[in-house]
Amino acid sequence: MRRVAKSEGVSPEFIRKGVERGNIVIPKNRLRRISGICGIGAGLRTKVNANIGTSRDSSSVSGELKKMRLAIDCGSDTIMDLSTGKGLCPTRRAILKNCSVPLGTVPIYETVVAQFEKGGAVKDIPADDFISVLDRQARDGVDFFTIHAGVTGKTLKALRDHPRVLGIVSRGGAFLAEWMTENGRENPFFENFDKVIDIARNFDITLSLGDGLRPGSIVDATDPAQITELVALGSLRKRAMKRGVQVIIEGPGHVPINQIETNVLLEKIVCGGAPFYILGPLVTDAAPGYDHITAAIGGALAASKGADFLCYVTPAEHLRLPTLEDVKDGVVASRIAAHAADIAKGVKGALEQDMKMSRARGDRDWNKQFDLALEGSKPREYRKSSKPSDNDVCTMCGEYCSMRISEKCFGRRA
Amino acid sequence: MRRVAKSEGVSPEFIRKGVERGNIVIPKNRLRRISGICGIGAGLRTKVNANIGTSRDSSSVSGELKKMRLAIDCGSDTIMDLSTGKGLCPTRRAILKNCSVPLGTVPIYETVVAQFEKGGAVKDIPADDFISVLDRQARDGVDFFTIHAGVTGKTLKALRDHPRVLGIVSRGGAFLAEWMTENGRENPFFENFDKVIDIARNFDITLSLGDGLRPGSIVDATDPAQITELVALGSLRKRAMKRGVQVIIEGPGHVPINQIETNVLLEKIVCGGAPFYILGPLVTDAAPGYDHITAAIGGALAASKGADFLCYVTPAEHLRLPTLEDVKDGVVASRIAAHAADIAKGVKGALEQDMKMSRARGDRDWNKQFDLALEGSKPREYRKSSKPSDNDVCTMCGEYCSMRISEKCFGRRA
Repeated sequence: MRRVAKSEGVSPEFIRKGVERGNIVIPKNRLRRISGICGIGAGLRTKVNANIGTSRDSSSVSGELKKMRLAIDCGSDTIMDLSTGKGLCPTRRAILKNCSVPLGTVPIYETVVAQFEKGGAVKDIPADDFISVLDRQARDGVDFFTIHAGVTGKTLKALRDHPRVLGIVSRGGAFLAEWMTENGRENPFFENFDKVIDIARNFDITLSLGDGLRPGSIVDATDPAQITELVALGSLRKRAMKRGVQVIIEGPGHVPINQIETNVLLEKIVCGGAPFYILGPLVTDAAPGYDHITAAIGGALAASKGADFLCYVTPAEHLRLPTLEDVKDGVVASRIAAHAADIAKGVKGALEQDMKMSRARGDRDWNKQFDLALEGSKPREYRKSSKPSDNDVCTMCGEYCSMRISEKCFGRRA
Repeated sequence: MRRVAKSEGVSPEFIRKGVERGNIVIPKNRLRRISGICGIGAGLRTKVNANIGTSRDSSSVSGELKKMRLAIDCGSDTIMDLSTGKGLCPTRRAILKNCSVPLGTVPIYETVVAQFEKGGAVKDIPADDFISVLDRQARDGVDFFTIHAGVTGKTLKALRDHPRVLGIVSRGGAFLAEWMTENGRENPFFENFDKVIDIARNFDITLSLGDGLRPGSIVDATDPAQITELVALGSLRKRAMKRGVQVIIEGPGHVPINQIETNVLLEKIVCGGAPFYILGPLVTDAAPGYDHITAAIGGALAASKGADFLCYVTPAEHLRLPTLEDVKDGVVASRIAAHAADIAKGVKGALEQDMKMSRARGDRDWNKQFDLALEGSKPREYRKSSKPSDNDVCTMCGEYCSMRISEKCFGRRA
């Protein structure tokens, strides 16, 4: 708590109170030592997560480690390992060993991949396997778990009663829906939620209650299935909180601009002010290849209204496993959204950074601008690529630089 | 009006009423024939403008024509020629000849560049030269003019009384401030506004009343200078409207997220519902190299609250004259912002496009998704670069595709 308080410029007591109320979480497994600890929640800087991990079509551990390092270098506050490729457990351990920031997983992936590798079907997974994997991952040191315990019989009924254009777009949610539907049984995480709490409590793991029914299309946003699940997550959070387990609530997804504020406020009310961790939201479905931008728009707006934690979306979303370049573009776009929201929320230090940047811009102090930039390498490269004949300005306006004229008329700080 | 009505899916009477009230403009010089005519304003699709043009450091007409064509191909609704390089007049004529959409200029650039080329100083420009250039450009066929008639003695006093971190960041505004300050005289466009109206009326040119005092830093946003100028623009608009001249109001600039809605509503109230044409707004100063994203965040939010016309911002903003790639990135980002806002505003056809895209996504119909995309070449290239072993899915989730599982459990449209 002291380390988090120092990095945010707030008092340790502010952090302690936030954690006590469940409005702030500090995701860190008791067994882990990490240099990049962070707090997530009310009054703190909006945080950014980057997803990495192998898939069946691309299973290079070294490649994923490179993505992890790049994401952290670009300012990602946490990493999630979503591997589903071969050697899922050694991959996770290699990532954990090298990861200087909190690491999260979606443990159901391990359960399902193990079943597939045995040639089995999802429906034949023993209920206990969903829980036992948590203990294994906890002992490895995972800091936070996404658990889709809100995909219950009741929420799936809401989905059936109010059909969507795109049913379930969460992998974890889809696996559970398949298992539940084919076996006619309740969600094993929901039924065994006390066991989930036990494991989380033993290792001080933060539970990120996943939104398995998040909308995957603008036209499905804020529908009965999504809201039914959110209400379920609010109840589960209360149970976990009572036993001293930290909880984050996950949120959508694809949401039109005019529904974003409502989604954030609803989560804050229904889930007692728990930190809100959102994927996007993407404000249109119509821009594949550019979803880092659609997500930055939604993320900035959501965070400015109170969302606390942005899961990055890369330009590769909906298209392919991200490359290194995609990872960088995704992290930078999310950090822009987070920072712009922090200015709007009045988070300590955010506006000051823009003030310094504007002064450096007015002074045409190019190196200082690049040092202050959220990402400095691209602007450096741009300027290098297009050297003006007059070094005091840039090639857009050249000698007609408005800032230089303004300085002439009104002095340095008009 | 009939052509605009058809392209928007509204009645010609709706357009006629909007034009009459000044809530809609159709920028087209009486002398021009263009295939890509468009309406801008209330109830219509949010439009996007791309700026092109030479600078002293880069004066290739063919290069700028390429940028123009690319911008139009990517969906830019209008083009502005902001050339300040050598051969400014022939450049404009070449662009006008080849431009299939409305073309705008900032005529003061021609006046100032001509003076510089003669080796003269801004302060020595005869007042009449600012006006005579309008007539010349009107005869060339320019469809809309940015005129900074609101940079008056009164607004400059507001700037002096309330100093900024970055004084004047509009080139047109800075030239006028220099001329006015050094000569101790009033703005020539303001003093001769009736002559400006005469020329606009003769050629049915739309006046885009420029915001020479727009904030260039988040910390300067919504300050007395900006608001004083906006009030002046509202009065000037009334005068132009009375004589049947169409008017757009230009807006900021750099504005934090929490001030964007206020800025849009203020313009709508103070300027009688005139179409609002905004540059960004950029929601942080701290992301040079990524200002297409900072502007897309601000533009999407502003347009969702009522702004009508987004001037693109490229990743090169503040750094260099944009390359072809920068132009494409800028237009696409602005179109995403405009489309996301149109969904929120309920503009005809916007949500339908996302519905079609979501259906194609659910069907894993990749080619249809790319055809429906706001920009199809990048997603096509992404998919081609990363072919999954199973063609029905993509390499992110592979065999664990949630949409395929969902379809299995709940049918095609759960």
